[in-house]
Amino acid sequence: MANQPPLPSPPPRKRGRPKKDDSAFSDTRERLIRYGIETLTEQGYASTGIDKILKAMGVPKGSFYHYFKSKEDFAAAVIMGYGDYFAKKLDRWLRAPDRLPLDRLNDFITDAKNGMERFDYRRGCLIGNLGQELGSTQDTLRPLMENVFQDWEGRVEKCLLEAQEKQQISAQHDCRALAAFFWIGWEGAILRAKLVRSNEPIDTFCTHFFKIISL
Amino acid sequence: MANQPPLPSPPPRKRGRPKKDDSAFSDTRERLIRYGIETLTEQGYASTGIDKILKAMGVPKGSFYHYFKSKEDFAAAVIMGYGDYFAKKLDRWLRAPDRLPLDRLNDFITDAKNGMERFDYRRGCLIGNLGQELGSTQDTLRPLMENVFQDWEGRVEKCLLEAQEKQQISAQHDCRALAAFFWIGWEGAILRAKLVRSNEPIDTFCTHFFKIISL
Repeated sequence: MANQPPLPSPPPRKRGRPKKDDSAFSDTRERLIRYGIETLTEQGYASTGIDKILKAMGVPKGSFYHYFKSKEDFAAAVIMGYGDYFAKKLDRWLRAPDRLPLDRLNDFITDAKNGMERFDYRRGCLIGNLGQELGSTQDTLRPLMENVFQDWEGRVEKCLLEAQEKQQISAQHDCRALAAFFWIGWEGAILRAKLVRSNEPIDTFCTHFFKIISL
Repeated sequence: MANQPPLPSPPPRKRGRPKKDDSAFSDTRERLIRYGIETLTEQGYASTGIDKILKAMGVPKGSFYHYFKSKEDFAAAVIMGYGDYFAKKLDRWLRAPDRLPLDRLNDFITDAKNGMERFDYRRGCLIGNLGQELGSTQDTLRPLMENVFQDWEGRVEKCLLEAQEKQQISAQHDCRALAAFFWIGWEGAILRAKLVRSNEPIDTFCTHFFKIISL
């Protein structure tokens, strides 16, 4: 997928007296993860120093290590946080009740393209970026990233199955395979969009994707 | 594309008395670039320290800076070296005289998959890897990487045009757009193959690619 910002607001505080320590804890953890999503997406894993993050966030080192055992542990939380955030974003588009399934998928694509443009094609997808950087070397984070892709695939598959129900696409299609194909090509398109600083690669991929599903 | 190794052997020495200085120069430069291809592909740009490369290669710092002004300058030479190397590899498959054009494309894919497997899905494509890592931040190397993709696209386009001539695919196809689509999806497939340590994503992408060109 593309672009994540604007990042989600922190959850509203519950009424009544807050459990002071817990909320402070979860706020700091949440802030670190949100900032981690931004910096890891733009700069990658190796270039992101924990010290720099702590300085930018005004968080003491001890506090960071209270929440995260290591940089890797932090990256794992960032990956899962981004996966969840993006799954909600996908659902907003792919479950829109007043739109036909393929229109919903198109709406998501348009929104993602707008996001790419808004951030001058500098962000792209955290999971695609880290997957490319760490896929070869990082055996702990690798399955987490794959899980995120599979989760997103499941959401697109569901949308395509609904398109079959509504007879927008042929009943012959294997929607699971199509959803896998969608995310494979999508991540390649986001990578190229960053290189050329334009949405043209996304359009090229999507044109061919829609050609296949219209068969 | 996928996997580059085994790397090409250095060109054979010319007969007669070698120009000692020049050949030593070009040998060292060549060796540094070849080693750079390996390390930058596997570890990325930020994680690759020049000092580590020099130590591994037994090359003094002054010698490195004789050939390359900076790490960025070195990476540029590595990107172009890899682009050329891979273009030759593509030509070997895509211009094979005794095979039909689509069979040649299939042969390239099979060879790339074998390469991915041989290196345990840890290498992938230097340009895809660096493009993902540096596309957002590196404005000098970015156009170089895009040039490499466009060069490879041109070679696949040529193969598809020949497939049209041989009536293997419909004359209606826009071979340039198909070649662009091929490399977009291919890079996405290589990224996922690294994450799942299997060629399944490459198969998923190629199945859909061949479905489109068979229309």
